[in-house]
Amino acid sequence: MPPVTLVLGGARSGKSTHAEKLATGTLFGGLPRQAVYIATAQAGDVEMATRIMAHRARRGGGWTTIEEPLKLAVAIQGAAAPRQPILVDCLTLWLSNLMHAGADLDEAADELVRSLEGLASPVLFVSNEVGLGIVPETPLGRAFRDAQGRLNMRMAERADRVILMTAGLPLTLKDRPAPRG
Amino acid sequence: MPPVTLVLGGARSGKSTHAEKLATGTLFGGLPRQAVYIATAQAGDVEMATRIMAHRARRGGGWTTIEEPLKLAVAIQGAAAPRQPILVDCLTLWLSNLMHAGADLDEAADELVRSLEGLASPVLFVSNEVGLGIVPETPLGRAFRDAQGRLNMRMAERADRVILMTAGLPLTLKDRPAPRG
Amino acid sequence: MPPVTLVLGGARSGKSTHAEKLATGTLFGGLPRQAVYIATAQAGDVEMATRIMAHRARRGGGWTTIEEPLKLAVAIQGAAAPRQPILVDCLTLWLSNLMHAGADLDEAADELVRSLEGLASPVLFVSNEVGLGIVPETPLGRAFRDAQGRLNMRMAERADRVILMTAGLPLTLKDRPAPRG
Repeated sequence: MPPVTLVLGGARSGKSTHAEKLATGTLFGGLPRQAVYIATAQAGDVEMATRIMAHRARRGGGWTTIEEPLKLAVAIQGAAAPRQPILVDCLTLWLSNLMHAGADLDEAADELVRSLEGLASPVLFVSNEVGLGIVPETPLGRAFRDAQGRLNMRMAERADRVILMTAGLPLTLKDRPAPRG
Repeated sequence: MPPVTLVLGGARSGKSTHAEKLATGTLFGGLPRQAVYIATAQAGDVEMATRIMAHRARRGGGWTTIEEPLKLAVAIQGAAAPRQPILVDCLTLWLSNLMHAGADLDEAADELVRSLEGLASPVLFVSNEVGLGIVPETPLGRAFRDAQGRLNMRMAERADRVILMTAGLPLTLKDRPAPRG
Repeated sequence: MPPVTLVLGGARSGKSTHAEKLATGTLFGGLPRQAVYIATAQAGDVEMATRIMAHRARRGGGWTTIEEPLKLAVAIQGAAAPRQPILVDCLTLWLSNLMHAGADLDEAADELVRSLEGLASPVLFVSNEVGLGIVPETPLGRAFRDAQGRLNMRMAERADRVILMTAGLPLTLKDRPAPRG
């Protein structure tokens, strides 16, 4: 598995399911390996709580789950262990939490990117593509769309592998060859 | 032609035109073959009536047209005939009609998938990608986006070939080799 | 460089940056070549003025900038010179300006396509994909989405090369081989 993977896609495009299979090594069947799940979601309302429960039921056992809405860099570094993949689901909710908390988004992205340096675990990030509709009507909608686009570009540049999901089907947008040695 | 083809894309991406050319075998010129067109649109308002007429004018002759807003599985099975392709345009309006009618969406999708088993005709479905903008403001908007995403994943899993259209250009996301025989 | 390139993508997908690198030949480093930048943006409000300034600062020297919100065909023909690429950024704002001015959109697109015939300069167009969200709530939103989709299809058909940007990563959707000669 490459050190850093980014799985992009729209809503209900199969991002989380694909990333989970990549993390546990079950894309082509076989026994799942242990992995860490860092959930950025907060069960603030019924709609979100229902989604979180559905995600959890689908994942099943073999996962250590950590809930961290804001301090992602700290959570990733705390969870790192050799050959144990970390799945962060998802950067979109993290971004939304950061904006809600009035955090400095560039600083948070810097910190996230720094946390990946020399990490023992491979990390997989799930993130939404949100910029392919018409211009949002509200300033907040436009600000969120722009921030998400900037964050996705930043993470895609850092990632070794970037996958775009459409209707459950993966399309590889970037695949950096593993270093020899 | 593979048994089941799914043509995905955004609004005005050239989905219908491409699917029509695939159905009639005119993608690279040549004489069109007979095909069946199952329209799920209902001319409920002026905007939609205008679109339906424009689609019809573009298709021209050589098509048998069936209008079926809801009972798609029945319409497909009724229209099946050896070597006569069926084009369903589109699953997005079908889904919208089902939601408006208060139908059970999972049951309808099950029935649709079952109707394709052992069918004499190759079938082509046109469907919209709607999940790549920011989160819709209304609960209905979010429910529709989620239902469309789930339906697209379901049909993409069942399809032998999946094509994503962008600005009239096709990108093949899945192409299952034809069984030898 | 092919005669006509179209760079598509959502908001904050890295379209402009990629097109600028293609125009100046700096995609893989090296010294930038001279190029013409045709800006269709109008600094009508603070949000837009800020964006224009950020774009300008990023581009740096080596560019001749022309501002033309409406008469794109005239601007392109006026700027053409052998081996000097022209970058038009972007067709989405041009379309928005045309709609605001009540112009005939098909006629404007015809004129634009005609302006490319036998041009001395290679031209690169940047344009937004806006049709992958749910149906816009307002008639103006739907009209814009449809007009943008039609324009993108038209330009993609005319272009020799079409690139779709996602999170700063290019995906080639069309690449017509250069004529031998």
